[in-house]
Amino acid sequence: MKNIKLTLAYDGTGFHGWQIQPGRETIQGALAEVAERLVGCRTPIHGAGRTDAGVHALGQVANFRANTRLGAEEFQRAFNALLPAAIRVVQAEEVEPRFHARWDAQSKIYQYRIHRGRVLGPFSRFYALHYPFPLDEQAMTEAALAFEGEHDFTSFAASPGADADGKEVNPVRVVLRSELVRRPARDLEPPAGPLETLAIPAFSRSKPPDELVYVVHGRSFLRNMVRKIVGTLLEVGRGRLSPAELRELFEARDRSRSGPTVPPQGLYLAAVEYAEPWRIGTP
Amino acid sequence: MKNIKLTLAYDGTGFHGWQIQPGRETIQGALAEVAERLVGCRTPIHGAGRTDAGVHALGQVANFRANTRLGAEEFQRAFNALLPAAIRVVQAEEVEPRFHARWDAQSKIYQYRIHRGRVLGPFSRFYALHYPFPLDEQAMTEAALAFEGEHDFTSFAASPGADADGKEVNPVRVVLRSELVRRPARDLEPPAGPLETLAIPAFSRSKPPDELVYVVHGRSFLRNMVRKIVGTLLEVGRGRLSPAELRELFEARDRSRSGPTVPPQGLYLAAVEYAEPWRIGTP
Repeated sequence: MKNIKLTLAYDGTGFHGWQIQPGRETIQGALAEVAERLVGCRTPIHGAGRTDAGVHALGQVANFRANTRLGAEEFQRAFNALLPAAIRVVQAEEVEPRFHARWDAQSKIYQYRIHRGRVLGPFSRFYALHYPFPLDEQAMTEAALAFEGEHDFTSFAASPGADADGKEVNPVRVVLRSELVRRPARDLEPPAGPLETLAIPAFSRSKPPDELVYVVHGRSFLRNMVRKIVGTLLEVGRGRLSPAELRELFEARDRSRSGPTVPPQGLYLAAVEYAEPWRIGTP
Repeated sequence: MKNIKLTLAYDGTGFHGWQIQPGRETIQGALAEVAERLVGCRTPIHGAGRTDAGVHALGQVANFRANTRLGAEEFQRAFNALLPAAIRVVQAEEVEPRFHARWDAQSKIYQYRIHRGRVLGPFSRFYALHYPFPLDEQAMTEAALAFEGEHDFTSFAASPGADADGKEVNPVRVVLRSELVRRPARDLEPPAGPLETLAIPAFSRSKPPDELVYVVHGRSFLRNMVRKIVGTLLEVGRGRLSPAELRELFEARDRSRSGPTVPPQGLYLAAVEYAEPWRIGTP
């Protein structure tokens, strides 16, 4: 019995999220279907995190067990040949039998993109939140740091103390890093190379827009937690929530007082970290 | 009567190209529909270039004439409110009455993206050609320069001496610059900021893939000319066409001997240049 670890990137736009659901296109469902074709029998796929509908991944991790002669690289090629192009296996490795993508995950990294330009480029419409209105970005940058550390995140969860399954869970979570960074948005970027030296009015007339990227690295997350945090940061940016009120939210354990849940299209599961490589066989 | 110049970016994926066609989603059709709503009567939209189905634009230019009180900036806002998000008005200006987006264009710039990574990231699947096989990129880079200058491009047109309408046209065209450049592909890029300093196995293990970008700046182009040139460059890269044979193709005037027409999704109309700004009124 082999245990195969997959590192996945996907465009969540056309999917009803990660979790398999009968009659709906999901990432886990698409993977399970292909795995069954390759392995010859029903093959459960274990994912590190359950992304919601419209949420993307750059480095989701999953694993499955199979009695198979196929090696990890053959699995990668076969998955990429049979999966929709919206889901890609970026890496496949054979790992130790006891490895489990979810239970062994040490931490996860999410990012959320907020496009600050006046016009959202057509190529970003499914991949960022467009927020062209004034924001106190300095206040947001400072507020982002308040989420670091061990906190009761009840105020920033989908429903009080519930996980993705609706089960009661511990609302105390550990956030290792929580930062807001600014970078140039690339959605209307001029072409590469020689043309950068040409005077093209459409590009040279206006400076390129910026985007804010919220990056959070945590041991684990409550459902909708990242999107609630970003919604709360936007409230800070709009001057509707002071830094002091933000700190009170942790103690309040009241999700009605935090910001709204921002839409899914700006969110990416960027990476999942494991304490060990778990890899066996040829690298 | 005002004359409004629009600079447009669009994702051509879901459209049957630029040119208006009854019963089909086209860029020109979508613009004409919104213009009619805003102006109150049928309003022809003149575009600088006719992009084919699946071809994108970063800086297409169009104009229309209208008896209207709306200013250029109001048009921009109204178009962007009513158009599908796949089409954006990046800039709108009131220009001199005699300005015509097509007849006054001095030159156009196209780019074509070729993704060289082993895996094409899900976010690039509609925006680049995936070519993961070996290529002599040095030979291609040199071959790209052969297209500069005034040449008979019959061998690189959709059909001999025919323009987008099928009318007989002069196959001699002037290419001002023709270059192949290499840059990092960004489709599986790690998140911005603090995480660049973290050791994330999925990202740090392999170096980011590259993409080749073919950039061409010309006075005007025959139908499919850029896609035929790129197809021919790929033949050079595969060793199927020597630099000497490439030069012979101009004299041969035989499209059956040039490379295939590459698919549309890698192609972008990047910019249209005009000799004068043509602008009137407040900038």
